Amino acid sequence: MHTNKIKLFCPATIANISCGFDVLGVALDAVGDEMVIRKAKEKGIKITKLEGQDLPLETHLNVAGVAGMALLEHVDYEDGFEIEIYKKIKAGSGIGSSAASSAGAVWGINQLLGRPFSNVDLVKFAMEGERLASGVAHADNVAPALLGGFTLVRSYDPLDIISIPSPSKLYATVIHPQIEVKTSDSRKILKTNITLADGIKQWGNVGGLIAGLFQEDYELIGRSLVDHIVEPIRSILIPGYDTIKSESLEAGALGCGISGSGPSIFAFSKGETVAKRVAHTMKEIYQKIGVDYDVHVSRINTLGIKPLDQ
Amino acid sequence: MHTNKIKLFCPATIANISCGFDVLGVALDAVGDEMVIRKAKEKGIKITKLEGQDLPLETHLNVAGVAGMALLEHVDYEDGFEIEIYKKIKAGSGIGSSAASSAGAVWGINQLLGRPFSNVDLVKFAMEGERLASGVAHADNVAPALLGGFTLVRSYDPLDIISIPSPSKLYATVIHPQIEVKTSDSRKILKTNITLADGIKQWGNVGGLIAGLFQEDYELIGRSLVDHIVEPIRSILIPGYDTIKSESLEAGALGCGISGSGPSIFAFSKGETVAKRVAHTMKEIYQKIGVDYDVHVSRINTLGIKPLDQ
Repeated sequence: MHTNKIKLFCPATIANISCGFDVLGVALDAVGDEMVIRKAKEKGIKITKLEGQDLPLETHLNVAGVAGMALLEHVDYEDGFEIEIYKKIKAGSGIGSSAASSAGAVWGINQLLGRPFSNVDLVKFAMEGERLASGVAHADNVAPALLGGFTLVRSYDPLDIISIPSPSKLYATVIHPQIEVKTSDSRKILKTNITLADGIKQWGNVGGLIAGLFQEDYELIGRSLVDHIVEPIRSILIPGYDTIKSESLEAGALGCGISGSGPSIFAFSKGETVAKRVAHTMKEIYQKIGVDYDVHVSRINTLGIKPLDQ
Repeated sequence: MHTNKIKLFCPATIANISCGFDVLGVALDAVGDEMVIRKAKEKGIKITKLEGQDLPLETHLNVAGVAGMALLEHVDYEDGFEIEIYKKIKAGSGIGSSAASSAGAVWGINQLLGRPFSNVDLVKFAMEGERLASGVAHADNVAPALLGGFTLVRSYDPLDIISIPSPSKLYATVIHPQIEVKTSDSRKILKTNITLADGIKQWGNVGGLIAGLFQEDYELIGRSLVDHIVEPIRSILIPGYDTIKSESLEAGALGCGISGSGPSIFAFSKGETVAKRVAHTMKEIYQKIGVDYDVHVSRINTLGIKPLDQ
């Protein structure tokens, strides 16, 4: 029996996890959007409600609309869908706001259609929403949103997404300073070339991080959360970054880095107590320097998008 | 009870495993040197016999001597050791000939001293032998020789070696074309800079390879055995490389790459049957183009250096 309507939790996600620039992401539990998707007589997709953010409602200008349409192109379906979006993840915060909407749309539609596609299939459709949002059809937020836990985008051509286990005591703390950093700007300042020496350090750390996640070795995870390439450049755009990082580590965080293309900063900790202490430390720093912020403490969301009671 | 004499098998190793340039190595079982180490009255280390290769016997010019002396600097020991080396791994073959001697020396001495050091501690001493051999104290051969299986050198500063599980059906085929490629020359032709885009692909593949090894996912291991950075440059120095690679993959190999800094070529396969078929394919190509070769088919050596009956 297929239902005609579904309500969803669409998680925030951290991409560009330190050494895992452009390949490693993870889904969160404590922050995410809600969406309601229902079957409709009219062909195509209609965004009927959008609360919480000032974003376009036109299907071809809305990431949920575009991602949903990408899916519909691959099925033989005569009718359409209406989507309500309740944004709780701020656009431009660096924790996958557009990915949550793109992933939610395709997950929900797939569900209402009786699941013709696997979650891995859905990544491709959701990437079209990302293309609209940032100009690049990246997968590092939509993959963890759809699959849950940690995901590795091993390759884009062909698309190859690998689920990586999430140690049970791993918590994320994310602070979002209320300043705007556009993904496109944040991409522009990156250098096209890196030294081979930095590259070697980076893939050594990616190897260590993946091994640490498989072995639930929190110390190894911490030692591997190092980024020699992107963080030194992008962190300049984030107020108080170095202080937040050093004091988070002092407060017990395993590691700390830039979430997505910023300006949000994430830290991973072993256990909720430490993660909360890190949140407190981060808050105090922004209070001191007078930057408004949102802060979230979250366990790792191993399921990804979740249906909610209606 | 400590014995006064030990006989060892010192395995050949594959370093620079495709995407894992400079960080990933693995120990082999079917090819390796033998060493006999015994306690002696004279302080220091004396190489009393060296068969199979024309290499210096003087302690400070011999990698086993230098590695052993590096260890002895860290213990309070009045007497010394004599070492006999029976080389079966050809110097310059790219399967860790110097590493086998360096690692064997420190492993055996540590054993005869009642194991004051862990195998991970021993890596540092063995690296001094590598410094003598190639000018660079690299760890990517001595680590798998000492620890067995796959090892990741996550970082050199501080030294951080991670053991990675070895899928039980994984076999290596290694062919050594009898041409000389010096490690130092082979390093010189590498570029100092790489593109960020290639770096991202490389660390995506390292992540995939590590995940594949943990999950015993042979397909994923195969898809991840890709090197966009070093192979295109170094393979030029190896006769018939492209043909060997493409035909090995055709014969069923999961992946194929340059062992160490060459000229040996390795392939990984699932199961001994495929690994032998790959060996046959490789041989035929070198027979056709008239290159002399040695070929080895080996299961993964998960123990590293092993004591032999005396």
